[in-house]
Amino acid sequence: MAALPPGSIVGILGGGQLGRMLALAAARLGLKCHIYAPEADSPAFQVTPFRTLAAYEDRTALEGFAGAVDVITYEFENVPCEAVEFLEGLKPVRPGSTALRVAQDRLLEKQMARKLGAATAQFAAVDTFGDLEKAASEIGLPAVLKTRRFGYDGKGQITIRAAAAAERSYEPFRNKPSILEGFVEFRMEVSVVAARGLDGSFVAFDVVENEHRNHILNRSLVPAGISPSAEFEAIEIAKKILADLDYVGVLAVEYFVTGTAGREKLLVNEIAPRVHNSGHWTMDACVVSQFEQHIRAVAGWPLGDPYRHSDVVMTNLLGDDAEAWAALAAEPGAAIHLYGKAEARRGRKMGHVNRLSPRQA
Amino acid sequence: MAALPPGSIVGILGGGQLGRMLALAAARLGLKCHIYAPEADSPAFQVTPFRTLAAYEDRTALEGFAGAVDVITYEFENVPCEAVEFLEGLKPVRPGSTALRVAQDRLLEKQMARKLGAATAQFAAVDTFGDLEKAASEIGLPAVLKTRRFGYDGKGQITIRAAAAAERSYEPFRNKPSILEGFVEFRMEVSVVAARGLDGSFVAFDVVENEHRNHILNRSLVPAGISPSAEFEAIEIAKKILADLDYVGVLAVEYFVTGTAGREKLLVNEIAPRVHNSGHWTMDACVVSQFEQHIRAVAGWPLGDPYRHSDVVMTNLLGDDAEAWAALAAEPGAAIHLYGKAEARRGRKMGHVNRLSPRQA
Repeated sequence: MAALPPGSIVGILGGGQLGRMLALAAARLGLKCHIYAPEADSPAFQVTPFRTLAAYEDRTALEGFAGAVDVITYEFENVPCEAVEFLEGLKPVRPGSTALRVAQDRLLEKQMARKLGAATAQFAAVDTFGDLEKAASEIGLPAVLKTRRFGYDGKGQITIRAAAAAERSYEPFRNKPSILEGFVEFRMEVSVVAARGLDGSFVAFDVVENEHRNHILNRSLVPAGISPSAEFEAIEIAKKILADLDYVGVLAVEYFVTGTAGREKLLVNEIAPRVHNSGHWTMDACVVSQFEQHIRAVAGWPLGDPYRHSDVVMTNLLGDDAEAWAALAAEPGAAIHLYGKAEARRGRKMGHVNRLSPRQA
Repeated sequence: MAALPPGSIVGILGGGQLGRMLALAAARLGLKCHIYAPEADSPAFQVTPFRTLAAYEDRTALEGFAGAVDVITYEFENVPCEAVEFLEGLKPVRPGSTALRVAQDRLLEKQMARKLGAATAQFAAVDTFGDLEKAASEIGLPAVLKTRRFGYDGKGQITIRAAAAAERSYEPFRNKPSILEGFVEFRMEVSVVAARGLDGSFVAFDVVENEHRNHILNRSLVPAGISPSAEFEAIEIAKKILADLDYVGVLAVEYFVTGTAGREKLLVNEIAPRVHNSGHWTMDACVVSQFEQHIRAVAGWPLGDPYRHSDVVMTNLLGDDAEAWAALAAEPGAAIHLYGKAEARRGRKMGHVNRLSPRQA
């Protein structure tokens, strides 16, 4: 359980912007990164000379990768569990496949949250159209039908508003393990980005208020507009989740907030077993970012101080938003981050801006 | 004079920690870096897949490098002027060879400072022992004999305290263009790290108070313990120097401070035409670091906001200081930076720590 000394190599499965920012954070600490990704134009390939370009199913490549690194982590939860399990036989993988299996599955996620005493929307497993009819009558409509796995940014989900529409809505979900969730009239969405160290220590960044647009995160505001007691509760739930998963690394918990100010109710919505878009503000408003925090945990280092020195609003740059880079770069108090992606497809995450202001409280 | 768009490649001469931190800062902006360095174990090679391993005298390699990048900069002033001049014929080099020529030469540096109305220690060129005798009698002893070029961290200099010792002291300086400088009984050393954009815009970070140990920077403290009027003067002198050199990029000016508090006198000591050790605190106490500022200038981007959100003390980790990395990483409010150097030779810069505290004024 010793910490990996500077000069060690962290292997990262996935070469997107999260892998890229993890690699940049590791470099600050004198650690090297080896990126494993199946796409030749992976943004993370631009920031390290150590790479494997191969499919996640390529056992020979996985073996070579494991042999070239000291510890392994992943930048997104849709990496195949089989690849992670195979790698676990060769090198430490943090967080491990147990956390990945739970966080990949909306049903297991919600069952765990309930087990730990946290509230969630009503939910029921849906494997057949009969399950859907039964669940809809119990939970009531509107309700949201989601695939249990491989959904993100609103993909793989549909809102069912009337029983008559249920059959047509179900069509794309046939033969896919799914879940029906009660529709929550929430007042706000918040998240907690927290870390657990190899020694079981726990550290959370401040609670974040998130604004979505077309199911994609648009802005994160810190501090969040919720009461101190709700902040405390959000962090306590995250703490229980990380402990329950025997987790090592950074994890994000997303909540729906209902109820009035000072009497908020939190419903666990989703868990992401990785660094998270709603933690990008930490890059400029904290002395240790979520990316460095994850690397510290994975490498067995002490977790960093999560103190936030400034108030901050993070705004995603989607698609051609990033074309305004020159104007954004000229803004006082703003830090611009661009991910090195060549093609600005509609809705694609191209970068983000952190706008800082002096801390008010 | 257009700005280089994200995705462009910045070429950096030199692969030390400064080149490494420049490359990491460029990656934040979606820019790629190509490192040119003659040492295979260059720290900057660890953070980019684009590299040229070759001597600065290798014209073929320089040509290939120029062809692979969009703009060229350097991380240290001891890169041969001939290489920079050769590259200038192929691609924009920022800052250019004029600034490099002046900043490489202690005599030209001081002459420029005087021309701009800034004070310096007394000085005289020394090309022969006769020159030294004459200079010593005019300036008085003690005085410091320095090579005009290639000195850093106290290398290439000796203090002469008595006329009887002059001849022996001169021995290693024979046939090297040198300079004798009057010994300054300074109260404090401060520096200004400032930037000038491609459009002539000027931006300075807050003035830094520097503490040296064995001629090597030990700590930088911000804010510096000098009066606002002295801060203003230090920045004004830097502004004149950057304009006079038609400079593009980050430059550091080091000053000796004499006189009492509120009636300080500033003497220009040295100019470094590059990012500087006394600017490392900006990585954690400002929204835009000196490294990003340099990249912005070199790429023709708008300069960033130099606002300092926290008070900060930067401490260098020299030689085996860096062995305490685990304890340093556990310190609240501290950001640890390690440079990826394998061998911790005595006095070698292995990393630094920025210790932040809430801004007091």
